[in-house]
Amino acid sequence: MTDSGTIAPQDGRDVRVRAHELAPRVGDLAHNVGLIDAAIRSAVDDGIELLVLPELATSGYYLEDRDEARRVSIDADDAVFERWAALLPAGSVVVVGFSESDGDRIFNSAAMLAATGLLAVYRKTHLWDAEAEIFTPGDEPPRVVETPVGRLGTVICYDLEFPEMPRGLAVSGAEIIAVPTNWPLVPRPDGERAPEVVQAMAAARASAVAIVCCDRSGEERGHVWTEGTSVIPSDGWPAGSKDDRGRVDATLSISPTRTRIGPYNDVLSDRRPALYSALQEPADTPTAD
Amino acid sequence: MTDSGTIAPQDGRDVRVRAHELAPRVGDLAHNVGLIDAAIRSAVDDGIELLVLPELATSGYYLEDRDEARRVSIDADDAVFERWAALLPAGSVVVVGFSESDGDRIFNSAAMLAATGLLAVYRKTHLWDAEAEIFTPGDEPPRVVETPVGRLGTVICYDLEFPEMPRGLAVSGAEIIAVPTNWPLVPRPDGERAPEVVQAMAAARASAVAIVCCDRSGEERGHVWTEGTSVIPSDGWPAGSKDDRGRVDATLSISPTRTRIGPYNDVLSDRRPALYSALQEPADTPTAD
Repeated sequence: MTDSGTIAPQDGRDVRVRAHELAPRVGDLAHNVGLIDAAIRSAVDDGIELLVLPELATSGYYLEDRDEARRVSIDADDAVFERWAALLPAGSVVVVGFSESDGDRIFNSAAMLAATGLLAVYRKTHLWDAEAEIFTPGDEPPRVVETPVGRLGTVICYDLEFPEMPRGLAVSGAEIIAVPTNWPLVPRPDGERAPEVVQAMAAARASAVAIVCCDRSGEERGHVWTEGTSVIPSDGWPAGSKDDRGRVDATLSISPTRTRIGPYNDVLSDRRPALYSALQEPADTPTAD
Repeated sequence: MTDSGTIAPQDGRDVRVRAHELAPRVGDLAHNVGLIDAAIRSAVDDGIELLVLPELATSGYYLEDRDEARRVSIDADDAVFERWAALLPAGSVVVVGFSESDGDRIFNSAAMLAATGLLAVYRKTHLWDAEAEIFTPGDEPPRVVETPVGRLGTVICYDLEFPEMPRGLAVSGAEIIAVPTNWPLVPRPDGERAPEVVQAMAAARASAVAIVCCDRSGEERGHVWTEGTSVIPSDGWPAGSKDDRGRVDATLSISPTRTRIGPYNDVLSDRRPALYSALQEPADTPTAD
């Protein structure tokens, strides 16, 4: 048996968040940097504290090959990050996906920025489809970063579909997970949300962690997107709605008691890690109990 | 980026499943055994291969105290299990929740039965709410059991809300997870499914594993249930609909290629366990990358 929501949030703080669904132009770095500039300025004007932008917002997604990808990739120490950071007031954070060059390698990365500069870069660890032809998978897990909006983690798109990823970030203390995505439109039953949104909702509720997914829009080389941008508070129910500029704004209440879901239960401390380790060992020959 | 459903199932086999939402009477073992008898007979008549019944179907849920629970609990070697097994044709499996006595201890358990007898007993490892006043938590993880309907795992109710549980069973080879539940009715936004169903859908899709959740009905000591009984194939979208006797029937197609979701991707082999272990270690002091 299970229940939810019986404990009122106490001493929470509010964070004004926005996920802004952009339509980058594939292979056109200058154009896309301009889009991101404008999105950041607009968020700052509107008092947004956490702005999440799409995966590969600087480059577009359907890059033809490594040569095209290389031309549109930037290093993590590129001056554009400091320029974006300089637009931010103290207290604000931006997470934006970019195609990262590092010597010969290219990563599908996300930058986390505050007024103080670049806080962290995460390199996507689970590559989807033909991404592997262009990108090197990251070999470091995402980290929880202390930011002006709280303890923030980032994963990128397909990463989120591995339950270990949001769960691990939550166990490591994340209060909010920012998820730059490029979700292609796939068939689904009438009346259903995109399946990736269902997974985000479940991940949020399972760990009482807010999840902010920023998808993209526009058509790119014949591909369209699910446009499933969602701001999901720690109760798992999407908040806010998208305006005609592709923006979902919502206020997240981050309560220190959010993981307590009843007098006896806490979704994180009720975990039994020793059992989970044993569960994933090669199964014994099953026998009757 | 992510996608789904681009690979057609190949060489799959079909399993006719039913989740039958019963309304046990609290504390009335004889009555409840009768309900279960009838449900098994009816499933056999209807050619059902896997029947899943609710959590604590033998005892009811809101037991007053350990004394009442003890009076209605049965040992795992109780003759009733052999009697139920004897009703089954070869090829059929039943999973039913029961209040299990073992010396002084009482467990919230599930029995897995086939024509050959009791295949396994799983004892709920994550206790919800005041269950801890009555039940001892199990200290063994669920196991994947080779059954006539395939590789089957069982968890009970709140267990399923720990993403580690369905994921671990799937990684250990489960094709189907049976989930006896007693989900209390809790507030949710208009038009939404019960939140526990959202979590089951996400767990199914994340690991391409079918999940069969059997809730209960009836009012018990002032409590009612979400009646969210759901048969969820490995694509994550609920199948079938409930008839006026509380039964959801559906045919699950269990394909050996179900975890392959595209030419480059497999939801299980794309996992990166070493990163997940590192992710859950105490975070380093976060620094700029």
